[in-house]
Amino acid sequence: AMESRELFVLTYGALVAQLCKDYEKDEDVNTFLDRMGYGIGVRLIDDFLARSAVKKCRSYSETADMIAQVAFKMYLGVTPSVSCSNTAGNEFSLILDKNPLVDFVEELPAERASLCYCNLLCGVIRGALEMVHLAAEVTFLRDRLKGDAVTEIGITFLRKAEDRNELVTTT
Amino acid sequence: AMESRELFVLTYGALVAQLCKDYEKDEDVNTFLDRMGYGIGVRLIDDFLARSAVKKCRSYSETADMIAQVAFKMYLGVTPSVSCSNTAGNEFSLILDKNPLVDFVEELPAERASLCYCNLLCGVIRGALEMVHLAAEVTFLRDRLKGDAVTEIGITFLRKAEDRNELVTTT
Repeated sequence: AMESRELFVLTYGALVAQLCKDYEKDEDVNTFLDRMGYGIGVRLIDDFLARSAVKKCRSYSETADMIAQVAFKMYLGVTPSVSCSNTAGNEFSLILDKNPLVDFVEELPAERASLCYCNLLCGVIRGALEMVHLAAEVTFLRDRLKGDAVTEIGITFLRKAEDRNELVTTT
Repeated sequence: AMESRELFVLTYGALVAQLCKDYEKDEDVNTFLDRMGYGIGVRLIDDFLARSAVKKCRSYSETADMIAQVAFKMYLGVTPSVSCSNTAGNEFSLILDKNPLVDFVEELPAERASLCYCNLLCGVIRGALEMVHLAAEVTFLRDRLKGDAVTEIGITFLRKAEDRNELVTTT
């Protein structure tokens, strides 16, 4: 058995607890976690591509499915459900019925109401996507730790810089 | 596949990098990691006992073997070799040919010569042992990151407080 996940989850909890001591504002903790996640994502992507042997995704929809069905499964052992949230087809929701990152967390303290406990994940996704040339905004939209029925991560793929340039140069 | 170990190792690396920014002195980073590890160990022990279904160890030697052959294997996927280092039978060395926690680390920066990068592990062992009523000092004795041939963790089991009391009350 290889139970590194427990070690990861507990280490993560200890990290967040320490950050809450260091930073008074929830926002600062959230930013820290997101940036730390970004740094992890830009390195984890190589491991992911090597292990998964996935081919290039041809659409945002395929990319979102890949994150949920392959990446989450591989690294966290869960498979979120995916839905597209807008007609433009660039906004997606990952719904987690079970979030392994909070296995040892009971509830957030009242004075930490704005803390996004799992914000590292947003940073990881953002960093990994950037390395395959996809700019995205990734945020928690709902969180069971905050009393929501499910945990929901929102991914908004941003128009690529090159696309914008093309648009500008062709008009 | 469940590849949480990569996520753990990268998260740990990001944590150490952040601590190195926050704390000028290597000693302070080492202490921080040890304390954080302690907090993890005191929680991880329940998970370990539940998963491993091990019985009570009857000697320090058995305990050291358990840490190396069951706990390290379970959480980090490696099995250190164990040797007893003194005739009193309370000092042990865990020798790691391969340390998965440094998979993504090339070498320590020159100005961080006293950093015990993996000091979290010492704290985890110390915390877990304390929960089964074994006081111990746990430190890195050698470290491949510092140019040593192997990585060696030293565990010194301390005489129990009750033993000392007995000794005092019977004289």
